[in-house]
Amino acid sequence: MSPGRDCLLAGLIRDPETEALLGASAEVAALLEVEAALALAEADCGLIPAEAAARIADAARLLTPELEALKAGMGRDGVPVPALVAALRQAVPAEDAGYVHWGATSQDIVDTALVLRLARILDLFETRLKALAVALGALAEAHRATPIAARTRMQQATPTSFGLKVAGWMLPLTRHLDRLAELRPRLLAVSLGGASGNLAALGPEALAVEARLAARLKLTTLALPWHTARDTMLELGSLLALITGSLGKMGQDVVLLAQNEIGEVSLAGAGGSSTMPNKANPVAAEVLIALARSTGGLAGVLNQAALAEQERSGAAWLIEQLHLPAMLLQTGAALATAAELVAGLRVNEAAMRATFEAAHGLMLAEAASFALADHMPRSAAQALVKTACAEALASGQTLIDVLRTKASAPIDWDSLKDPARHMGAADALIDRALEALQRG
Amino acid sequence: MSPGRDCLLAGLIRDPETEALLGASAEVAALLEVEAALALAEADCGLIPAEAAARIADAARLLTPELEALKAGMGRDGVPVPALVAALRQAVPAEDAGYVHWGATSQDIVDTALVLRLARILDLFETRLKALAVALGALAEAHRATPIAARTRMQQATPTSFGLKVAGWMLPLTRHLDRLAELRPRLLAVSLGGASGNLAALGPEALAVEARLAARLKLTTLALPWHTARDTMLELGSLLALITGSLGKMGQDVVLLAQNEIGEVSLAGAGGSSTMPNKANPVAAEVLIALARSTGGLAGVLNQAALAEQERSGAAWLIEQLHLPAMLLQTGAALATAAELVAGLRVNEAAMRATFEAAHGLMLAEAASFALADHMPRSAAQALVKTACAEALASGQTLIDVLRTKASAPIDWDSLKDPARHMGAADALIDRALEALQRG
Amino acid sequence: MSPGRDCLLAGLIRDPETEALLGASAEVAALLEVEAALALAEADCGLIPAEAAARIADAARLLTPELEALKAGMGRDGVPVPALVAALRQAVPAEDAGYVHWGATSQDIVDTALVLRLARILDLFETRLKALAVALGALAEAHRATPIAARTRMQQATPTSFGLKVAGWMLPLTRHLDRLAELRPRLLAVSLGGASGNLAALGPEALAVEARLAARLKLTTLALPWHTARDTMLELGSLLALITGSLGKMGQDVVLLAQNEIGEVSLAGAGGSSTMPNKANPVAAEVLIALARSTGGLAGVLNQAALAEQERSGAAWLIEQLHLPAMLLQTGAALATAAELVAGLRVNEAAMRATFEAAHGLMLAEAASFALADHMPRSAAQALVKTACAEALASGQTLIDVLRTKASAPIDWDSLKDPARHMGAADALIDRALEALQRG
Amino acid sequence: MSPGRDCLLAGLIRDPETEALLGASAEVAALLEVEAALALAEADCGLIPAEAAARIADAARLLTPELEALKAGMGRDGVPVPALVAALRQAVPAEDAGYVHWGATSQDIVDTALVLRLARILDLFETRLKALAVALGALAEAHRATPIAARTRMQQATPTSFGLKVAGWMLPLTRHLDRLAELRPRLLAVSLGGASGNLAALGPEALAVEARLAARLKLTTLALPWHTARDTMLELGSLLALITGSLGKMGQDVVLLAQNEIGEVSLAGAGGSSTMPNKANPVAAEVLIALARSTGGLAGVLNQAALAEQERSGAAWLIEQLHLPAMLLQTGAALATAAELVAGLRVNEAAMRATFEAAHGLMLAEAASFALADHMPRSAAQALVKTACAEALASGQTLIDVLRTKASAPIDWDSLKDPARHMGAADALIDRALEALQRG
Repeated sequence: MSPGRDCLLAGLIRDPETEALLGASAEVAALLEVEAALALAEADCGLIPAEAAARIADAARLLTPELEALKAGMGRDGVPVPALVAALRQAVPAEDAGYVHWGATSQDIVDTALVLRLARILDLFETRLKALAVALGALAEAHRATPIAARTRMQQATPTSFGLKVAGWMLPLTRHLDRLAELRPRLLAVSLGGASGNLAALGPEALAVEARLAARLKLTTLALPWHTARDTMLELGSLLALITGSLGKMGQDVVLLAQNEIGEVSLAGAGGSSTMPNKANPVAAEVLIALARSTGGLAGVLNQAALAEQERSGAAWLIEQLHLPAMLLQTGAALATAAELVAGLRVNEAAMRATFEAAHGLMLAEAASFALADHMPRSAAQALVKTACAEALASGQTLIDVLRTKASAPIDWDSLKDPARHMGAADALIDRALEALQRG
Repeated sequence: MSPGRDCLLAGLIRDPETEALLGASAEVAALLEVEAALALAEADCGLIPAEAAARIADAARLLTPELEALKAGMGRDGVPVPALVAALRQAVPAEDAGYVHWGATSQDIVDTALVLRLARILDLFETRLKALAVALGALAEAHRATPIAARTRMQQATPTSFGLKVAGWMLPLTRHLDRLAELRPRLLAVSLGGASGNLAALGPEALAVEARLAARLKLTTLALPWHTARDTMLELGSLLALITGSLGKMGQDVVLLAQNEIGEVSLAGAGGSSTMPNKANPVAAEVLIALARSTGGLAGVLNQAALAEQERSGAAWLIEQLHLPAMLLQTGAALATAAELVAGLRVNEAAMRATFEAAHGLMLAEAASFALADHMPRSAAQALVKTACAEALASGQTLIDVLRTKASAPIDWDSLKDPARHMGAADALIDRALEALQRG
Repeated sequence: MSPGRDCLLAGLIRDPETEALLGASAEVAALLEVEAALALAEADCGLIPAEAAARIADAARLLTPELEALKAGMGRDGVPVPALVAALRQAVPAEDAGYVHWGATSQDIVDTALVLRLARILDLFETRLKALAVALGALAEAHRATPIAARTRMQQATPTSFGLKVAGWMLPLTRHLDRLAELRPRLLAVSLGGASGNLAALGPEALAVEARLAARLKLTTLALPWHTARDTMLELGSLLALITGSLGKMGQDVVLLAQNEIGEVSLAGAGGSSTMPNKANPVAAEVLIALARSTGGLAGVLNQAALAEQERSGAAWLIEQLHLPAMLLQTGAALATAAELVAGLRVNEAAMRATFEAAHGLMLAEAASFALADHMPRSAAQALVKTACAEALASGQTLIDVLRTKASAPIDWDSLKDPARHMGAADALIDRALEALQRG
Repeated sequence: MSPGRDCLLAGLIRDPETEALLGASAEVAALLEVEAALALAEADCGLIPAEAAARIADAARLLTPELEALKAGMGRDGVPVPALVAALRQAVPAEDAGYVHWGATSQDIVDTALVLRLARILDLFETRLKALAVALGALAEAHRATPIAARTRMQQATPTSFGLKVAGWMLPLTRHLDRLAELRPRLLAVSLGGASGNLAALGPEALAVEARLAARLKLTTLALPWHTARDTMLELGSLLALITGSLGKMGQDVVLLAQNEIGEVSLAGAGGSSTMPNKANPVAAEVLIALARSTGGLAGVLNQAALAEQERSGAAWLIEQLHLPAMLLQTGAALATAAELVAGLRVNEAAMRATFEAAHGLMLAEAASFALADHMPRSAAQALVKTACAEALASGQTLIDVLRTKASAPIDWDSLKDPARHMGAADALIDRALEALQRG
């Protein structure tokens, strides 16, 4: 089902702009916009009288059909178009009625009306992706030189740069923008196939009508009608999964960093508990995780819509209608939530530093073994560091202090101790990521 | 997201009873019902004053909080309970306010309120499953002796009984009723764990309060609070997938039998086309297919909610909230649609007979080879039948007529020709299925 | 596809016992076991000569058909049975050949052979579930009185008992054992439907043959052949998802508790890093998480097999064959991995205590507000605690010490400070869980 | 798990070329190829001695490590690299051992080795997609003028061209080729991040090493290491779902057209039945359907891998390893099966014509109403046709013959009767599709 608003959860998973574009009113308006454009396009090509087309377009603009009647039609016919066309025919002079919906099939209208709204939704998502990437880019820039413990496989690893971590949240967004650009001409195409996908009822002017319809609606055309070639819709679903997935990864990182025992970031406006005054729940980050797992899984359900039988499938098409709107809304909500999260992210550099101290310098193990490897075989260096790690853990000393007593090599141990000196190519990598952002 | 009503599709995928139980008003009413029962249960055990509990329960009964305020609370806290509790505290005398929500955590209230509504929804589904099974049982009985072509791997196979086919749609419903009965005591349990799942704030009377709460709400108790043991919720999701799957299989069969070239069944109230007056689309059957594929897939997405971290998960719990309501509504809609479909199913026995005739008796190949095997080795019989099949196809004769000229065995060829004589154990099998239905 | 062994990953996700039951050799042996039992059951009922049946059964026992030939047959026919039957017919005296596979269809043999192996696999899983539950029960008992920080929504909440947490990992396993018991009679049923599911070729003795076949193979019978009623197989898939889900939740908890900053548990035999000598990766716990997410999602893919067309579906049945073996192997591997993880789990009680100290007593906020509420209105108590929390965080004092200076109420502050006194009903709850384990 | 070969199903779902690239031997070879290239790249940049690098590269070329030892290492460490590196170090002179795997992390090697094999697999898939599109293009060309009944919502609709239907199977393949081209530079990138993704152990030459490594392996570089930015792998999974989905749609159409009652196409080499000599099962088409539903669903499971925690995730990465190989193999098998299916597709033009005759001309309803609409208002025309449809069905006359007696309009009824005259813009559409194929 399309996004549900009649529940309290709608207060948490929300995106009023996308909701407005997916609601029944916008749906009906888009269906009428397509019927109007179709009549005008047919008049452009001489199929129907220009005056009739103009009157149909005017009537479509003014018509606000009873939603319940359209839903009843949907319940009866499995598509809302017969009921809508009946209402539109009532709204025009009797002699024009026959020209309404001339030569089209219901799916032409429904698919094109969907694409019209998708065009607007994709614009919205593009804007949000760009703004989010810019915000993350600025955060990465600001924290280039902030050391933080890298954690691999949920264990502390080596020092890295918090700015690099943030750049890692950002860079996939630039790839999503590229994918969006690649998808648009495939997806934002007019659907005009007529009853069986060969435009038979439009006669020799069929392809001209299609071209005019596309031009009027600012959409592209594909080589063939796509009633049962749904790969472009499923590609959209996959992209929504990729986008929410990247945001979910950021949410996951934030939840982990915001644990009390780590406390390296926190969220403004964290959620309250009904019974524990000490709690500050990272609600926005949890939302990103849930939306990523959900939208990612829904992409797999949506893919069942690929198997559209013959020239039009009722069942497969319904699968699309059941899931795509929810996926769009969830992606919109994830983008909005991510923007809020980033805006309210508090970075606790002191806690990041404290992590290194509490870890007895063990995160410098790799750095120490590479430093030692300048003066002894690497295997010997690694063995020495491994022994020293165990000794540091047992004694409570730092790894570097243990090593200092064990190794006679001329190493600048004090400098080695500073995590900020062990962030590798973070600076250059952040530069590369910011360049990718600017190119995007 | 929970089921969406603000779209035209809601006219097709609908179940007003389930929708009402899942909507925001029912949600708030159930939350308040739990807060009331909690106060009364605590008073039963002497934790809070009985008069305060009575006043809280009264206030909860009368309160109709502003939905937008609760949604805003949901957006802030990730749960609606803090905002609801604040409203309820406002609605009671100041001295009672502290006793509202005493010792509970938000999730206790939300989960128990869900379970309360699930109890009603499962009753509804049980009633519908039974009625549908009974309707199918009657249809199976009526068509015990109606021969139809069995089709295996989408190819005609041998004769069978249409009644047996219908019994095959029915029997899984009796298993779903068994599963429902097994699930109920696990699922319909009160949730009371307090802040961290050990009921710490309720003191020594904690388990007594839980027992009273369960008794007041007519729910069971489990051995442990289940804040993060969601297997019972996921088991429900799996059962919904099984139910819609069985209905989808029936829908799939109906769509195939209703193809023009077969026409062995048709649907009353089939959907109209906007452009082809000759069309009668099997909309209800398509809906069953789509709901089966969708709900079946959603069960896999819902299963991601199993990984609830530690003593309460924000993210995993949200995944449940995003999908379970939609799955419930879809199952309700599938049950309602299936009932309509069965009520309007028109069985065309003549078309079923005609299929055998058009097939030149090839569907009697297995029967013929078994009849011949009484008089010759089975491999010889099969080889003879295979040759005869080819000859029948080439000549346009029926298989039996070809065999009659080829085999000298004393076989009653005319009787062999009648598909009604080749329905095997259909009668006894239907009896067994109807017995299972009556036992259920 | 069924579980893949030709990859290095097979060294990590492994369960030799289940693998052996799912491999091609076991598959062929089971197919032959069914053909043998079918012949004997038919002889029991007088359908075929007893001597022929005995010779067929002997031959089936001895036959080791060429796997490549069977795979080629599978590639040609979509089922391995025609090729296997041909090989078996070759292996018996010519006069018996016709009695091989008498009246059965390929799917009867394939499904019954699967069920035979499922019976063994479910026994294996039951044994493992019980052993794991017992191990966890013992751990819960041992740590009844060990305080640990409960963490809700990934934030510290209140004290709880580590034993209670472990009991929470255990209890769902007892429910899985119940579900297994409920599933068995539905799932472990002989499949005998013949060409079209009505046993036509078996004549009046058809149901007697089915009963004898079931008795010989120690399987049940269902009211109807289940060629296209796959709800029992999908129920199995759902149960596998539930089982791995519960294990995955345990794995998730362990990964979180094993983070360096928390260190409240660690794993014996944790994985090494190729470059960081300090690393100890919680590999077994990660495996449990991955298997849970994977198997849970696969259940949704498997559910697509519900839509089996008419009397036999090639496509839907293939979906089952593609996924069910992998789900079984993954569940077996998860059970084996969980047993290792629990056996090697090191519990660091000192770290658990240290967490409370590091938290400045903030986790006692709820306890303090309930203690204060004995002496002032609850809202006043909560407000006081909230202020004190902030002050404790700012000053570095513990919450209790701050409160002690602020509240004149006669409260035993020292006792309040001890987390072990705030584990609520943990003891009684653990008792209930252990009783459930013993009943199981 | 990666594709399983130890089962009979492997005889049906098979693609030896892809299997070879995914098997353990190819995996080890690729891992060693990367270790060799890494050493050489590091020597190129002066990090390690050129002679040592050359000896490492030679040893890597010759080494065939014991698979069981690597699997054991995988079981211990969760990655095969530590065990492999140990074996490689043993294989080089002691003084070179320390330079093996210098500065890299296991994931660098595993990911790059995967990408190397993906490059080969994508080449293979591209070749197959092109060949399949060309074969379908030729079939579309050959059947431009072959009328067939279009079927919408599983009901006969209007005449269309069989060539156009085939073009509809082909066109999405050209879009998949475009997507493949767009994906390649994102996906086929070297992975080099070192322990924590900042290349710390490689010093100031880190990015130069990355560039040399990419050049040596003919791979691209991304702006940042992608240890936990898995969007490109998930994009691959989504594309595999789209490809199999398009092939599954073709398989679905073929199964429907090959039903006995329709018989408009048939398959060479259709599968045999173990009991019914008359059967010819459309096995290859069923395989395409099953692989589409499976791979489409798996894409949703794979998407769970997006949530990779921090700098490296054990669990999320395992999800990828569990599913991506199976998806690749399934896609390879689907492409191979589709090629066979198209090569063996028998088109029965006579049956296609017969369908129109059997339908009493009802499929010309739309055409008739448009023809009549030249002479009367469209609504009147539609009403007249609707009445005539009912009369034709009742009387057994054709629709056109009924209309001829009812309508006085000067219409060329005989020409109207010919379905070949009602294929609309099929010709021009096929031209457009073939142009798209040639451009691709």
